[in-house]
Amino acid sequence: MAPSAAYKPDERSKGVRLAKRTHYDTGLVHNIVNTCSILHVSFNAPAIHNEPQFPTILPMLGAIARYSTDDIASLYLHGSSVARLFKLTEGGTQELPMCVAATHIDGYVLALAPFHNSCNYRSAVCFGHGSLVTSPEEILFALELITNNSVPERWENSRSAPTKAELTSTAILKMTIETASAKVRTGGPSDDRADSQDRELVGRTWTGVVPTYTVLGAPVESDYNQVKAVPEYLDDWVADANSMAEQRAVDAVDPPPADDGVEG
Amino acid sequence: MAPSAAYKPDERSKGVRLAKRTHYDTGLVHNIVNTCSILHVSFNAPAIHNEPQFPTILPMLGAIARYSTDDIASLYLHGSSVARLFKLTEGGTQELPMCVAATHIDGYVLALAPFHNSCNYRSAVCFGHGSLVTSPEEILFALELITNNSVPERWENSRSAPTKAELTSTAILKMTIETASAKVRTGGPSDDRADSQDRELVGRTWTGVVPTYTVLGAPVESDYNQVKAVPEYLDDWVADANSMAEQRAVDAVDPPPADDGVEG
Repeated sequence: MAPSAAYKPDERSKGVRLAKRTHYDTGLVHNIVNTCSILHVSFNAPAIHNEPQFPTILPMLGAIARYSTDDIASLYLHGSSVARLFKLTEGGTQELPMCVAATHIDGYVLALAPFHNSCNYRSAVCFGHGSLVTSPEEILFALELITNNSVPERWENSRSAPTKAELTSTAILKMTIETASAKVRTGGPSDDRADSQDRELVGRTWTGVVPTYTVLGAPVESDYNQVKAVPEYLDDWVADANSMAEQRAVDAVDPPPADDGVEG
Repeated sequence: MAPSAAYKPDERSKGVRLAKRTHYDTGLVHNIVNTCSILHVSFNAPAIHNEPQFPTILPMLGAIARYSTDDIASLYLHGSSVARLFKLTEGGTQELPMCVAATHIDGYVLALAPFHNSCNYRSAVCFGHGSLVTSPEEILFALELITNNSVPERWENSRSAPTKAELTSTAILKMTIETASAKVRTGGPSDDRADSQDRELVGRTWTGVVPTYTVLGAPVESDYNQVKAVPEYLDDWVADANSMAEQRAVDAVDPPPADDGVEG
């Protein structure tokens, strides 16, 4: 994908109030989604309670990729609820309007006045229509993608060839990304001049950022594990994830001016 | 709230595929929501692209509380997007069907076969109708609630009395929780017998759980901070959050049988 590629904003994805924080860069959107441990998927459940439709959210695992080099990027989703989700469309043949959100919180921004408190964050929302993947090759592609996106190299380091029973009970949902946007907030607090010039207030109120980030703990073996040492690919994953996590949150407080905290 | 209180499941909140993991206990739902750093809020945007409605997700800050002891529990939301959200209802006078989700990932569960990989998690979804809060007293109540829910004691340790301008430009959305459910997954992996009895596979495949949790880093002062030492209430928040986070993720692997990892 060309570094300059961008999603075309429409009514669904356009930044309204915080236009300067809104980005349409495909690399940024894909990075936020693919580094997020859990995605939130929204769709409409059937009519109940005299409402025409009721919005619903399911937390799901997923990742963005292109199945072939000709394809546009798609979001693949996997979860126990795919089946339920697809019963909502007639026999799984209709396409379902969907929104998928990925959010990382990088810090709590504390200002003199609560009105100016904020969070440092990176969030992405993707909009499109979802459909069930039916090709066995593409289902396998998506299973490997989603497995290794969560835990690098896990697919090839486990019994990854699915049994017939596993394949028939696996449902993969593919959403073609029609439009998407990302929002990124970095930096410290920013207060009103009246507060900043109030020496008594400034003298007693700590202002700044408390960075926050996700870490991986020491692996805990199952009661039937026979592999004595934690394999290198898992040790590397834990070490790499943890070494980058804190630095990223601290960098978000004072991002290098060159990139404004936004990655391509 | 009585410890035995529970939400009444309906078509929106009922656990279908994973009924044994689904809980309706109000204490559990409220705990998952109020300890989640960011909530995902779903609603329907107006008709576009020949769709009757299109689902949208916004990440927002919020918390559940009762405004008075007679009230039922409501979810209060605050964010820069409340205004945009409420333009969707006619002048903010109509109630908006909404879903709010809160998700914590406690661990990556690695099985012999990727089909049996899972996550340890605690998630909650709440359904109801949202409306704009108009009472200045209830807006203040919600601002203090949401501020202190994110950062304990921050409200009283900053310039918390809002100015007139702040109050008029603050929008708080209140969702009465009509139904809600929580899902909790704890424990290690569980594999098919054929895989568990495959000595070659078991001998080369590490199985277990990689705990994951969120931590708070060392506070970074703003360029206009004048308070030399980080105040005790912030130090305590960071220390308390971090001391509990790892333990909770490790406990999720092997929860005490008494509570099955589920808190009241």
